[in-house]
Amino acid sequence: MTETKRLKKNDGTKEAVSNGKASQIPVVHPRYSDLISRVKNFSIIESTLREGEQFANAFFDQETKIKIAKALDEFGVEYIEITSPAASEQSRLDCIAICNLGLKAKILTHVRCHMDDARIAVETGVDGLDVVIGTSSFLREFSHGKDMDYIIKQATEVIKFIQSKGLEVRFSSEDSFRSDLVDLLNLYKTVDKLGVNRVGIADTVGCADPRQVYELVRTLRGVVSCDIETHFHNDTGCAIANAYAALEAGATHIDTSVLGIGERNGITPLGGLVARMYTADREGVMAKYKLDKLRDVENLVAEAVQIQVPFNNYITGYCAFTHKAGIHAKAILNNPSTYEILDPHDFGMTRYVSIGHRLTGWNAVKNRAQQLDLALSDAEIKEVTQQIKQLADIKPLGVEEVDTLLRKFHHEKTSSEKAEDD
Amino acid sequence: MTETKRLKKNDGTKEAVSNGKASQIPVVHPRYSDLISRVKNFSIIESTLREGEQFANAFFDQETKIKIAKALDEFGVEYIEITSPAASEQSRLDCIAICNLGLKAKILTHVRCHMDDARIAVETGVDGLDVVIGTSSFLREFSHGKDMDYIIKQATEVIKFIQSKGLEVRFSSEDSFRSDLVDLLNLYKTVDKLGVNRVGIADTVGCADPRQVYELVRTLRGVVSCDIETHFHNDTGCAIANAYAALEAGATHIDTSVLGIGERNGITPLGGLVARMYTADREGVMAKYKLDKLRDVENLVAEAVQIQVPFNNYITGYCAFTHKAGIHAKAILNNPSTYEILDPHDFGMTRYVSIGHRLTGWNAVKNRAQQLDLALSDAEIKEVTQQIKQLADIKPLGVEEVDTLLRKFHHEKTSSEKAEDD
Repeated sequence: MTETKRLKKNDGTKEAVSNGKASQIPVVHPRYSDLISRVKNFSIIESTLREGEQFANAFFDQETKIKIAKALDEFGVEYIEITSPAASEQSRLDCIAICNLGLKAKILTHVRCHMDDARIAVETGVDGLDVVIGTSSFLREFSHGKDMDYIIKQATEVIKFIQSKGLEVRFSSEDSFRSDLVDLLNLYKTVDKLGVNRVGIADTVGCADPRQVYELVRTLRGVVSCDIETHFHNDTGCAIANAYAALEAGATHIDTSVLGIGERNGITPLGGLVARMYTADREGVMAKYKLDKLRDVENLVAEAVQIQVPFNNYITGYCAFTHKAGIHAKAILNNPSTYEILDPHDFGMTRYVSIGHRLTGWNAVKNRAQQLDLALSDAEIKEVTQQIKQLADIKPLGVEEVDTLLRKFHHEKTSSEKAEDD
Repeated sequence: MTETKRLKKNDGTKEAVSNGKASQIPVVHPRYSDLISRVKNFSIIESTLREGEQFANAFFDQETKIKIAKALDEFGVEYIEITSPAASEQSRLDCIAICNLGLKAKILTHVRCHMDDARIAVETGVDGLDVVIGTSSFLREFSHGKDMDYIIKQATEVIKFIQSKGLEVRFSSEDSFRSDLVDLLNLYKTVDKLGVNRVGIADTVGCADPRQVYELVRTLRGVVSCDIETHFHNDTGCAIANAYAALEAGATHIDTSVLGIGERNGITPLGGLVARMYTADREGVMAKYKLDKLRDVENLVAEAVQIQVPFNNYITGYCAFTHKAGIHAKAILNNPSTYEILDPHDFGMTRYVSIGHRLTGWNAVKNRAQQLDLALSDAEIKEVTQQIKQLADIKPLGVEEVDTLLRKFHHEKTSSEKAEDD
């Protein structure tokens, strides 16, 4: 993405996201791109193997870590961040194993600002270290004027050591949105002068809102010349919007995890961020990432941590492209962009019109069977549609019930075919 | 909330949200409240019984609708919006039944801008009508200059009719963020002059981001004198942040649904909005809403539409207040506000430290049993803790496994006590 292209005028229209039909749909407020915006030029630091390991259910063994790292690399994330090798011997071995995979993605590990941690990390083969300074209480002391020299001295030693090994280094605070602004900027300015690759802002408790994020990142953008990484927890529902606001204000890197897993209710989810960025720059996002691999990555991680993909998950949740009877379903058939900003086909998904009721039709049922990867002939679809209609005439069926019915029907058909083949 | 109080200086500190310990924690960027902000003075229009009925799984019978309406009223929402009585005969009967409950919340119904719909609605006993103009294609034609007079004429007739019955009236467009700005403002200005109570902005496809929302609402705030209602879909993860940005720009009413259920992956969730607003104004939110009823409302709706509450749900998701071993868990025990912006006790929830591993302790297990409402003595907790330790020494346990184990243990204890009583 060249600077010229980034500064190109947005003429207030965009191509409709529909089934290959490119109609002109007006977007809100024809806007010129801001000069500082990185909405069309950002990198993902995928932290499922670091932040995600702090999720309540997560216990990744090496085999699982490798599977997840490969899947993320296949999807196309620019960076994969993994747990500090100083955390445990197994973590160190896993870190080395992932570095040895030869992935396209750069491998980062997340370490405390201590020489002990840094020394272990630089020997694992990682491309860079994400250094984080202590805890929020550390910065709070700092904000009261204590230990300023000590922090600068420690940071300098760790940063120079990492640089001497030829590795990337990021320097981040914790709980940046509850830290003293002047102290924060002073610290970032100092490490920027030391030549770090990135400084990091972290909303560790999930308290920030998009306008605060925009203000802080924009201010920081004027203070440092290095890249800016941001990390947002989702306790109050702003993790995706905050990431977007950060990019608008000039941040360059966004931390994500698959399904957003992390401490408490997690951070910016990979899928949710992709949905947001796709809406802003469909072509750019499709060029960078293999969007049809998103569902596989999510299923892999969901299985590894024993959770259900939420019913309302971005893009891949079962109702993300579900339209119910009435005006929506009808309009969607005429022109999907009427009620869809995301084209399901771009994500390897298909549209679904609610079918668990007595007025359902076989075309809608066929649609659902395809979503479930169930190969059924039209005659078979018509047969199962009759079964659904009969059941739904007594009581409407939930999607799970219809799915179960379809799977059972498919299983019986497949079994009987197999029996015939034998 | 008086105007004077709203304009009060924010001195840049807030009380820590912890277990009764009020320590001073700095918030980001000490800010003066904007004059137009309604962050501390807003109303919720709860639309589970309208938007939520458009969720794929939703088929509410009258009994369920009444249960949900009562639970929402108990929680304290200012408005309950229900499906148009023109949709079906049963919808009309349900609407009348809910109006007859004598709830504190005002009852609204959502109707198309047609006299036919309005005539049916005004006879049901509702407090007001939320009028929506056609579909986005309607406004798109409008934006090309067609039918302007027709729309104004029709809107005028419907609005005046509703006003003649002494009812509240809101006038909203659909797909406001992909509509022509000048046409949109022109339309709102016209209906404002007719004396509507509210105009409505709707992000029907979920494409808007917080800065767009702020700009549009702030512009509209300067054009109309009536209240401003906003409705945000969550396709790209900004529904909560957009609602917050709208309030910052002067919007007065936010549409929500329980767990966010609605078309596709839904709208601003009630619980998520509450988490966000609590962070901005804990005292105000606690005074208005019975936060400890949130979980009951969510469980009621989740059961009615046959879904699981997502693992990462705001406030009530099982990991919202879950902290895993290491620095977080330790810090949390010293001072919860270090890693929590929401106090679980304010929501009738309790904190949870991950326990499904061999290093677990009985205090942590006791904590979880209390979250699950399982009454067990300390001796019993110590007994079940030993069982968990033995199992986890072979393989770490997921939260569901631990919960199952705890529930089974509790069931056995209760059954044996009951057997002894008999």
